[in-house]
Amino acid sequence: YSDHCPLTPLKWARQLFLINSFSVRRSARDITNMSQQAANGLPCRGKVLNLDNMNPNVRRVEYAVRGAIVQRALQIDKELKEGVKKPFTEVIKANIGDAHAMGQKPITFLRQVLALCAYPDLLDDNKFPDDSKQRARRILEACGGHSIGAYSSSQGIECIRQDVARYIEKRDDGISSDPDNIYLATGASDAIVTMLKLLVCGKGRDRTGVMISIPQYPLYSAALADLAAVQINYYLDEDKCWSLDIAELKRAVTAARQHCNPRVICIINPGNPTGQVQSRQCIEDVIRFAKEEHLFLMADEVYQDNVYAEGCKFHSFKRVLFEMGPEYSTTVEMASFHSTSKCYMGECGFRGGYMEVINMDPEVKAQLTKLVSVRLCPPVPGQALLDLVVNPPQPDEPSYDKFMKERTAVLAALAEKAGLTEQIFNTVPGITCNPVQGAMYTFPRITLPQKAIDKAKAEGQVPDMFYCMKLLEEEGICLVPGSGFGQREGTFHFRMTILPPTEKLKFVLQKISDFHIRFTQEFS
Amino acid sequence: YSDHCPLTPLKWARQLFLINSFSVRRSARDITNMSQQAANGLPCRGKVLNLDNMNPNVRRVEYAVRGAIVQRALQIDKELKEGVKKPFTEVIKANIGDAHAMGQKPITFLRQVLALCAYPDLLDDNKFPDDSKQRARRILEACGGHSIGAYSSSQGIECIRQDVARYIEKRDDGISSDPDNIYLATGASDAIVTMLKLLVCGKGRDRTGVMISIPQYPLYSAALADLAAVQINYYLDEDKCWSLDIAELKRAVTAARQHCNPRVICIINPGNPTGQVQSRQCIEDVIRFAKEEHLFLMADEVYQDNVYAEGCKFHSFKRVLFEMGPEYSTTVEMASFHSTSKCYMGECGFRGGYMEVINMDPEVKAQLTKLVSVRLCPPVPGQALLDLVVNPPQPDEPSYDKFMKERTAVLAALAEKAGLTEQIFNTVPGITCNPVQGAMYTFPRITLPQKAIDKAKAEGQVPDMFYCMKLLEEEGICLVPGSGFGQREGTFHFRMTILPPTEKLKFVLQKISDFHIRFTQEFS
Repeated sequence: YSDHCPLTPLKWARQLFLINSFSVRRSARDITNMSQQAANGLPCRGKVLNLDNMNPNVRRVEYAVRGAIVQRALQIDKELKEGVKKPFTEVIKANIGDAHAMGQKPITFLRQVLALCAYPDLLDDNKFPDDSKQRARRILEACGGHSIGAYSSSQGIECIRQDVARYIEKRDDGISSDPDNIYLATGASDAIVTMLKLLVCGKGRDRTGVMISIPQYPLYSAALADLAAVQINYYLDEDKCWSLDIAELKRAVTAARQHCNPRVICIINPGNPTGQVQSRQCIEDVIRFAKEEHLFLMADEVYQDNVYAEGCKFHSFKRVLFEMGPEYSTTVEMASFHSTSKCYMGECGFRGGYMEVINMDPEVKAQLTKLVSVRLCPPVPGQALLDLVVNPPQPDEPSYDKFMKERTAVLAALAEKAGLTEQIFNTVPGITCNPVQGAMYTFPRITLPQKAIDKAKAEGQVPDMFYCMKLLEEEGICLVPGSGFGQREGTFHFRMTILPPTEKLKFVLQKISDFHIRFTQEFS
Repeated sequence: YSDHCPLTPLKWARQLFLINSFSVRRSARDITNMSQQAANGLPCRGKVLNLDNMNPNVRRVEYAVRGAIVQRALQIDKELKEGVKKPFTEVIKANIGDAHAMGQKPITFLRQVLALCAYPDLLDDNKFPDDSKQRARRILEACGGHSIGAYSSSQGIECIRQDVARYIEKRDDGISSDPDNIYLATGASDAIVTMLKLLVCGKGRDRTGVMISIPQYPLYSAALADLAAVQINYYLDEDKCWSLDIAELKRAVTAARQHCNPRVICIINPGNPTGQVQSRQCIEDVIRFAKEEHLFLMADEVYQDNVYAEGCKFHSFKRVLFEMGPEYSTTVEMASFHSTSKCYMGECGFRGGYMEVINMDPEVKAQLTKLVSVRLCPPVPGQALLDLVVNPPQPDEPSYDKFMKERTAVLAALAEKAGLTEQIFNTVPGITCNPVQGAMYTFPRITLPQKAIDKAKAEGQVPDMFYCMKLLEEEGICLVPGSGFGQREGTFHFRMTILPPTEKLKFVLQKISDFHIRFTQEFS
């Protein structure tokens, strides 16, 4: 397998854009374009902006979670609405971690406060509990003109950053957090891209290299393509429950030093798409590795509240860093990312998130603050939501019981579904599935018959895309092929969220299992 | 003056970062850092990420609207709160177009619907008018799981894009608009940066050049620095009310062709920071110029509802393009930008906006859709807000009267303040001010005594920064120096919003006038 190349540009993705109604064939379009100009008596010139002269980095960007298969799924949705007959009545989109779209209800307290912030006349309404009103008043007082319609400071509202810092301190048993090191963002994605942008420089062999896990969440590969940074792949060990092995990190960084300047290591814990939860020991080893190799550490910890497996526990990178003593805690440069989109709340649409930076050069921090100021500020409703997430109702407050009941129910259901998924998939010959220790996804390995692989190749598709597309057409279930995340050559996977309601999830798991058996027979 | 160089890096900005508490001096810091490592028995290595090895494009980014002077203003705010005595009791931030922060009240209808969307239990509440409930239901039905907490499609919720298209059609007297050409965004800034990113390619003399007005809104120069594109300056004619002269466009593009590949022209109409409203003739000339020079046209029209001066009218670039006939309407590639942050609603915090693309190559559009999918979707509350802005209450609906009353009051007050600003400033010797025909700012020219210019230079500051900083320290009024937007060499300006409530605005205008006279005397 390839050690350091970017993920092979997913040819299927481009090919499948042709499915889209707007994907006119190039030559035909150019001819139309030119004939029109010629008819107008003008010199023949093509578009100012076309596929050949657009930003080549953008062309290289791929984002499978919303790639060709999802576009086809949307099209099938439309066909169903138009009355086209299919072997199913709805498309189930298990491609993305979108809890509310899968029927999860919003947490009452969060939405009460948001409504109060949006329309403060409701502060006189006795239908709202007192603590929701107090939170809303506090947020509004921190807003310009007491309105969430005012811009906030670019780094985020100060009192919310203070709440975030206190939340981190509590999470990490008292290790201090400075609100000046907190940057609120438009979802964690925004903060991750901003941090990567700061880190990229150099040309040729001096170009910044960024270590990412394979499988990875494709935001990383997409951002690196956009920034023309060098992607350095390190492989998680599927046979050991997707664990991370330091020897593999060493191999990857050593090989990469031949052709780029490795400066960053990105870790996703709990894992996306792989669902593993890292041990404390592993985190310590990664920190030691980052220090030895002089790497900036980016810890994507957006699933920190999504841990289900017995014996597993979330350890924050920051906490482990500080527990390793000043030799590490005063030197290793790090950023940690969190989001309002996952955990028990699943509020993806609000685009709330934050990052905490640790040991960052003060001059670089000034540059970071300047950079984020260009976009003015993260969405204020998302900031308000984040404030509630990091500062939920307390036991002596009226909303506490209901809040805890709702929160616990969501997390318990997720834990049940994590177990169910592993259990059912592992009964199917040809599907092997690691436990879903955390996060919201399963990434099972699928054995594909050689005939299917050949057929896919003949049709110019990667085999797991061929598989997923067939599943979509036959069963109306939308998954993301493993190739969209990266996988060892010759292995095939898909990513599926565990978010559908339990009964629907069972239905989906059964459908996929039946399909897999049928697919295997068809191509044997 | 310089024709094509990027704005001179605003040295004051970097210098003034030193004001910030976190700006430790470099050498001192390095020594500390190294001693610590040496004490730990490790080889001396600096930070993984420092000012010298960070992304050099990011270093070149400047954004004066939230630059050094605003940071100093925030610091003075804190000093006041801590009881430090000043010649004033509050800092008035006239640096940014932030209506709510200046006391403008949110429009009731918008906030009612947003509250209903956030907390749908309120749909049973008889305090809300029926039309607000209908809007909320319609938006929620278009959301995944009927929740604004679900991700939307990356291009934005389909029914909202349809509403945007209908709004554009109505605005442009029936010229058709295709919802597939609408991209919702995280404020107009996001859409502008995305569009510029698509357009940038090439190296050396083939590098993409982008024409922007001087003075400009510094989002443009910041984005071009970030993308390492070539900024091509064209100068607005201050003596003719900041009008745009085609001869100047020709001069700029011709000069630029010597060293880059001009591919884009950006126009801000109504103007920011300059407040002019372009005539229909001028827009036609610009379109003709764009076609002749084979340029992609970016029309920043976020102030389209902010037109105050008699005889002035907003003409959309799209409408003029289509009225020029198929020779233009089928060939000129264009994007137009709009926002929920300005006009009568001023809802900056929600980060809502859209762009409409016209005549864009279908393959490039597929790439654009792919690119925006990496960030998943714009904030859904901002999308909901945009829907209400493009589809406000109709005359037969219960909210209509109140909505119109509120809307009219805001726009009438702005018109009054636009007049007042021009009038008062023009009575001051040494301040000359064009009429504020539209938008939300005045950009008066200030005559500075030579002694002040020399003093500023001796202190390493650009003269208008020196002026604005002194105004801030003495009067507590925060403006943005003209150098942050660009201006003809040897001229000096500042940008001020006209947003403070009328009485406060009068107070601010008087304070600035008095300060200007005092400043002139002090340095004469």
